[in-house]
Amino acid sequence: MPVFFVSDSTGISAETLGNALLIQFPDVRFERQLFPFVSTVEEARKVVQALDAAADGPVTPIAFSTLAPTELRDELRRTRCPLIDFFDIHMPRVESVLGTTGMRVPARLHGLGDVKRYNHRMSAIEYAIEHDDGQSLRALDKADVILIGPSRCGKTPTSMYLALQHGLFVANYPLVEDDFESTELPLPVRAHRRRCFGIVTTPERLSQVRQERRPNSRYASKEQCTYELRRAEALLRAHHVPSTNSATKSVEEIATVIMQTIHRRSRP
Amino acid sequence: MPVFFVSDSTGISAETLGNALLIQFPDVRFERQLFPFVSTVEEARKVVQALDAAADGPVTPIAFSTLAPTELRDELRRTRCPLIDFFDIHMPRVESVLGTTGMRVPARLHGLGDVKRYNHRMSAIEYAIEHDDGQSLRALDKADVILIGPSRCGKTPTSMYLALQHGLFVANYPLVEDDFESTELPLPVRAHRRRCFGIVTTPERLSQVRQERRPNSRYASKEQCTYELRRAEALLRAHHVPSTNSATKSVEEIATVIMQTIHRRSRP
Repeated sequence: MPVFFVSDSTGISAETLGNALLIQFPDVRFERQLFPFVSTVEEARKVVQALDAAADGPVTPIAFSTLAPTELRDELRRTRCPLIDFFDIHMPRVESVLGTTGMRVPARLHGLGDVKRYNHRMSAIEYAIEHDDGQSLRALDKADVILIGPSRCGKTPTSMYLALQHGLFVANYPLVEDDFESTELPLPVRAHRRRCFGIVTTPERLSQVRQERRPNSRYASKEQCTYELRRAEALLRAHHVPSTNSATKSVEEIATVIMQTIHRRSRP
Repeated sequence: MPVFFVSDSTGISAETLGNALLIQFPDVRFERQLFPFVSTVEEARKVVQALDAAADGPVTPIAFSTLAPTELRDELRRTRCPLIDFFDIHMPRVESVLGTTGMRVPARLHGLGDVKRYNHRMSAIEYAIEHDDGQSLRALDKADVILIGPSRCGKTPTSMYLALQHGLFVANYPLVEDDFESTELPLPVRAHRRRCFGIVTTPERLSQVRQERRPNSRYASKEQCTYELRRAEALLRAHHVPSTNSATKSVEEIATVIMQTIHRRSRP
């Protein structure tokens, strides 16, 4: 089934809206097409042509639009394709709650926005790359979060996600054999205990992920993974470091758990 | 004004959709609070309590929900807080177009989903880190895209974003002085011309970004930035490498432009 996303900017919101609904129909195969940066009536007209062509095809398509300007929405509404116009219903509702009129202009939710905030996000990405895998121990006091856990539990992608989406300065520090011989947190992170967050997983999952990197190694063995995870969990527990199990979670879900923990911590 | 986002998973969709509406009211100050992972009626009841407390406050709040299960939505709907339920209106509409009933279960749009696809995204992040800043020239033939351009034009964050969001294998290669003495593309990327994409910016913006890294250096001087950008643009043009100017674009917007270019290229 053809699915169209129409937007005056990146289309991320239109895709989010559409996909949040379409995921409820796991048995249908969707062919998605994005029309981003639609900014003129002329461009909207071309989109309508493409949508109409699909509407005349064998399978009824559906289109999701987050176009904000009234003249573009008016143009798009001429299509014969079933259309879900995100602003159509929700905007008047929000306006009535706020008691004021929305601008109805292309607003670039995923644009540069506040430049200072944007630059901070970009610095956060650099910081995450520099402080990946315990590489640099400089400036750990600048970290908003220090992810700790055995190698290959998901620290790196989580760091990148937190930096990119939330502008957090995230360092990550792998717990290795030497660290397990002590009952203390590793020296480099010891002073930063309250900013640490643990990521662990299941022995099965860890062994599987490590197998891909170093097949049939001791490092990837079920025994070694079990040992490291058990020791890591004991260490985290002993030092009251909050943690999560990444085995069945996406980076987005792990990041959400971490953000909630940070918010709770920062509350008086 | 208090704003609440309620979700049975990460809340990314609820936040995206809510913020797409709220950005149309730039003069209002919003205080946002997220309730993720709401999965039981009991939890929904607690959310209603928090929303009601806000509704009894001095400023009328608003809540955005992407809860899917009917029993949770029924519970949430008891709140006195104005509520925008994204499934409420859209779901029946999509169902009628598809001629079938949606599952209405927590569907984890931002969850692990297809594990193979998810693992591919995770590999893409590793690849992006390994191939950042021309570090590794191994496996360039595995790259879906090779970003080229002068230092500090935005290649690194764009690589990370494309890897994280789209699972693309992205290498990035900085164009430096030596490269500008030739009219050919740099040797390591020459064989991969059709996978290259250029990122440039304005001399003003480049000089400003470089100043932060090395203040008052030749590297950050307006003259040097102007020279590098002019040479880079000539090189990209001469070899028909598509490119974009990052000066007023976010990584999300740059990534959208790149994705559109890739789709156009891959079409027969």
